Formats: sequence, C-alpha cells, structure tokens
Amino acid sequence: MQFKISARDKESKARAGEFRTDHGTVKTPVFMPVGTAGAVKALHIPDLKKDTRAQIILGNTYHLYLRPGLEVIEAAGGLHKFNGWDGPILTDSGGYQVYSLAHKRKLTEKGVVFQSHIDGSRHNFTPERVIDIQRTIGADIIMAFDECTPYPCDCDYAKKSLKITHDWLDRCIKHFGASGAKYGYQQYLFPIVQGSVYKDLRRESAEFIAAKNSAGNAIGGLSVGEPAQMMYEMTEEVCNILPDNKPRYLMGVGTPENLLESIALGVDMFDCVMPTRNARHGMLFTSEGIINIKNEKWKNDFSPLDENGQSFVDRFYSKAYLRHLVVSGEMTGAMIASLHNLRFYTWLMEEAREKIIAGDFSHWKDSQVKKISRRI
Amino acid sequence: MQFKISARDKESKARAGEFRTDHGTVKTPVFMPVGTAGAVKALHIPDLKKDTRAQIILGNTYHLYLRPGLEVIEAAGGLHKFNGWDGPILTDSGGYQVYSLAHKRKLTEKGVVFQSHIDGSRHNFTPERVIDIQRTIGADIIMAFDECTPYPCDCDYAKKSLKITHDWLDRCIKHFGASGAKYGYQQYLFPIVQGSVYKDLRRESAEFIAAKNSAGNAIGGLSVGEPAQMMYEMTEEVCNILPDNKPRYLMGVGTPENLLESIALGVDMFDCVMPTRNARHGMLFTSEGIINIKNEKWKNDFSPLDENGQSFVDRFYSKAYLRHLVVSGEMTGAMIASLHNLRFYTWLMEEAREKIIAGDFSHWKDSQVKKISRRI
Repeated sequence: MQFKISARDKESKARAGEFRTDHGTVKTPVFMPVGTAGAVKALHIPDLKKDTRAQIILGNTYHLYLRPGLEVIEAAGGLHKFNGWDGPILTDSGGYQVYSLAHKRKLTEKGVVFQSHIDGSRHNFTPERVIDIQRTIGADIIMAFDECTPYPCDCDYAKKSLKITHDWLDRCIKHFGASGAKYGYQQYLFPIVQGSVYKDLRRESAEFIAAKNSAGNAIGGLSVGEPAQMMYEMTEEVCNILPDNKPRYLMGVGTPENLLESIALGVDMFDCVMPTRNARHGMLFTSEGIINIKNEKWKNDFSPLDENGQSFVDRFYSKAYLRHLVVSGEMTGAMIASLHNLRFYTWLMEEAREKIIAGDFSHWKDSQVKKISRRI
Repeated sequence: MQFKISARDKESKARAGEFRTDHGTVKTPVFMPVGTAGAVKALHIPDLKKDTRAQIILGNTYHLYLRPGLEVIEAAGGLHKFNGWDGPILTDSGGYQVYSLAHKRKLTEKGVVFQSHIDGSRHNFTPERVIDIQRTIGADIIMAFDECTPYPCDCDYAKKSLKITHDWLDRCIKHFGASGAKYGYQQYLFPIVQGSVYKDLRRESAEFIAAKNSAGNAIGGLSVGEPAQMMYEMTEEVCNILPDNKPRYLMGVGTPENLLESIALGVDMFDCVMPTRNARHGMLFTSEGIINIKNEKWKNDFSPLDENGQSFVDRFYSKAYLRHLVVSGEMTGAMIASLHNLRFYTWLMEEAREKIIAGDFSHWKDSQVKKISRRI
C-alpha cells in the first residue's frame, strides 16, 4: 500500500498524506465512521458518501461474524457487495468487542473462547481465524488480533498481555501471508501497538511492530478511560518509533479535540463511535462548540443547526426542531444529529489537511481546539 | 377549496381529482404519510418530497400540542416553518389519540379532560380549543373534533356519541368561522362522519355532515377492528351521501388493498401509520405482495428490495441486507423499510389515478388487489 506524504507541518508532527486501496484513495488525516453491523447507524449508505463525505468506513468483525455471519457475507461477495458501500473498508479484529461485549470469555495463548452476547452460542477466535474472517468480510484493511488492555491495568498484566499480542501478531502475519486476497482486490494487514499506559512497554511494542514493515500501523488500547494527557504521551512515544512512511491509525479515538491533538503527534487515521452514539443522545459537535440539544435553551432557537455546517441538515433544520425530535425520541432526530456529527468530523479532518498543506496547522489547531471543545 | 374532478371510472365510484391549498395542489387519490410529532418516523423531511413523493402530510394535534407545544410552534411561525415541510399539512383533531393514548380521560358534552401520557399533566380539549390549536399549528386542513367510537360499540352508545360529535361539529364550524387564518394562508375545516358500524347512524351522520357544505368531508371511526367487509359497507353508504364535488377522506385506512377498494367506493384521501409502523417491524408492501423481511427465506436473497420499486432504496439495497439490518435492530433498517413502504403507497395512488384517467381502473384494481395482498 503506497502512502504518499504531500505536506508536513513545521511546528508539529502533523502530515497530510494519501494512501491507495483498490476501492479508492484515502486522503489523510481521515476519520472513519463506524459501521458496526455493516451500516453506520441512522444513515443511508449513499448518504455516507454524498452527505458525510466519508472516504473509508469501519466494520466490526465481532458483530459481522455473529450477524449476518460469514456464510451470508461470502455469498454476497463480501461486505462491499452486501451493503453497497463501494469505498474502502477497514475491519477491526474483534478483540475489543470480545472483551467488552461477549460473555464467558476465556483468553489463552491459543486465542479466545467466548459466548455470543446475542444468543449465548460458543465461538473461538484465534489469530488465524480472525484473519480468515476479515478476509471473508472483504476488508481492504485488516487488523491483527490483539488484546486491548483495560484501564487501569497493572504492569504485570500489561506485560503478559503484550507478549500474547506480539505472539498473536506473528501468527497473524504468517497466516495473512499464506492466505490469498478473497475477492480479487488487495487486502492489507495493520498490526497494533499495545502496552497500556507504560512508556517502556509502549516503546517495546512500537519497536516490535515497526520491525514488521506492514502496510500501516495502529495504536490500540488507548481512550479506554485514562486521562487525555496520558493518551497523548503514549501516542507521542509510539509515533516517534512507528515508521514515518506508513499511515498511523489511533484506534477508537475520540473527541474532535483528541483528533486534532493526535494529528499534531503524527496520527493519520481515526475511528470512533462518539459522533454517532453521542448524536443519538443529543450531543452535537459544531464549529462553535459542543451543544447538548436537549437543553432548555434551544427550545425556541429557530436558527439553523450549524450556521457553518457542511451538510444539508445544518441549514435545513433548526436547533429548536432537532431539540423537539430528540426530546420526543423521534428516530429522525438521531438521523439528523448523526449526519451532522459525522460531517463535522470529516470536515474537521479536511480542514486539518488543508492547514497542514497551507503550512499553518499548529496555529489553527490551537485556536480550533479552544472553540470546538467548549460547551455552548 | 376547489376540488376539480378530471376523470371518473365507469365501473365504480372511483374518481381522479385535485384540490388546491396555499401550500400546493394535491392530486387525488392521495395517501398522506403520518408525521405524528412533526416528523414522519425514520425519514428526513426533504426525502418525503424527493424520495417518497408525498404531496401532503398529516400531523397529530394531540402529540404536537403536548410536544413541542403551541408556544414553540407559534414562535416558529407554524409547523411548516418549524419542520421545513413546505407542502400542505392536514392535522387530525386529537380526538382519536385522547381516547387511545391519554390517561384518565373524561368525556362530557363540553369536551374531554385528560392527562398527558407523557408527564401526567392535565389538559382540556373542547371543540373550540381544538380549532384554535390546529389554527396555531398552521394546518392547511383542520379536522373537526369528534369522538371516534371503538369497535365493538353498542348501538345506544354509538347514538349518544354521534349526537355529541354532531353538536361538537356545530361548535367547531361556528368557532372556525369566527376565527381567522393564523399565518396568512387559507385553512379549511373538514367535518367527520361517525356512527360506528350502524348503517342508519352512518346515513344520519353523512346527511348531517353533507348539509354543512364544508371544503371536504371525512369518514372516521372505521378501521378500528371491524371486519374489512363491514368497513367497505359503511364507506359505500357514506360515500353515496357525501357531496360528490368535495374530497372524501377515509381516516386511518389502511392496507394497500383497503385503499384500492375504498377508491372504488369514491374515497379520495387516506392516511395510515401502517406503512411506517409495519416497516419498523420488517413488513414490506411491494408490487409483488407482502414481505416479512425477517423471514429466513430472505437470508441469502441478494436481489433488489423491490425490482419494480420507485425509490432509490429499492434498487440500492438487497433483501438479504435489509433482513440483516432489521433482525439486528439497526435503525438504518427502519429507514430503508419506511421509505420503501411510503413510496409504494404513493406510487399505488399515482397508478390508481392514471388508471382512472385511462378508463381501466376497475380491471386493474381487481388484478392489483390479488397481487399486492398475497404474502410472498
């Protein structure tokens, strides 16, 4: 996978780049909307491209494996054919969901045995199996199977877990190399740095992973409850070690502020459920700050949702109307807020990219962070 | 309100017409999507026009009165301004919801006292108040306040109830005449025929209402549990009495089959929650019949949702994909199914209109009813 860096910020580690997949080119920094079960919640697939301007979306291996299941996805010809999204898709490894959703899980060096949170059925994920599953889903970018440590996590456990993650990575790489692309287009494997909040472990992991010379590299196990400052420190440490000429993906992060700060540390790719999940609870991220639309103060505010917003919902709907829909539990409210938030995220990444290219990213970032992280 | 009849079917009472409101012309027969709380569930407002091709939508007075409340709607400048739908709007009188949703309701000749199903707050609906509320919501077509009798309903109660409905109608007409249009555009009042399933009461009511010379006339209290045959008999009886030169609106009806059969009896307007509510449970009305998308048989059916469908969802999404979304409880599933069903309903009305104009409605109706009412 080619990763071309077209510009670098002078005052930070931020870079503007692009990488190619057989389903299209992705310009970085990029935010990937989360399409858990093959759909980004509350959005039509065509609107993902047209309205939110997503370049690449994420699918969750754990969810897709359980429902609709591999048989259906394979019969469809892969997830792209199944859901109609023809851009690039990245799938996570399922590891995080096995720990956060599945029942009666048991982790050994071999892999993880768990019960489905849907019907209690028993399943077995191994590094090899997880590669096969993602090959079958048809992801353009496949994630290595890892253990995502919780926070807090004692150092001994983090160390043991890291060894397993690294062993699993070697098995993933081996199995990935031995297996072919499933549907005729190229698939790429990204390994994941772990190590909890321990700098020495993070360094060790980043060095281990850097040596694999993979198409791109991910940083996992952050944004799991640790203070933001700690997350930035780990990210910085790791970014300084991971190859400069490969995209860096910070998994599951985060707020708009987190994204901008992490771009400054050298991160290129992000995913997070926050824009869609918070949207369903009435939280809007806007260019002027964070809005809790349920707040009484918006009750009679008939101004557009976001004067500077980039999607049709921003000018078509008013704050008062969205407030009414969210307060009333109307599905249309979740649809409006989700579309707005996702477009805000992709717009923020587009802006960051432009500023990096224009050479004034750091200054812009500092002023943006102040604006977009305040509550209005 | 001008109602122009452009064609009549020779073998039935079906007619193709159109009426004008200040928010646009409506071609009949017409189906009005239900926008309970100012939004048609699971649809964006612009998509109502663009994708479902709705000509006119319905708002529920009871819901809108409770939430967001009249103060907000009035401050917005009426419902059109509030939700952005710029076509005609019809509001029901709230009577049906007071009986089906509200708590501790008490009906007297004066009106109805009830408690909100949302917060238990006490409210009072009288014929005069309900006219004022609908004036304030800004409906193009306002419905008279009535009692919608349940099924079954004994004849004595039906008779007493009808007297109240008729008394209330006189008060509605008086108050409507004494009050002005609220936002500068014309508002029209439709009275409602009641009388449960008693032909003599229905006739009495239809005659009473016909004499009022209103802009249009509605038939209420049907599709509340009685056999379809009984509903058709009542509708026929009433249609034969209601003025021919005014639109006739059969409230809360129904299945695609019910619509076609009622058009043949002389009905011009319909509304029903069925296309959207059933969509959320995975029931699709299609040109080939009724689909329960949750059924195992669609699991690996990657054919388009509806080969002959008229909306983008019909060709973009497959049956297997929609099945997966609905089974998984994904909101996008409800969005796809709702849009499909509504467009099917509006398409069916467009087809009926064309057939009436072309002179072969009855033949087409009989063959359609067979097709669209079977389960596939």
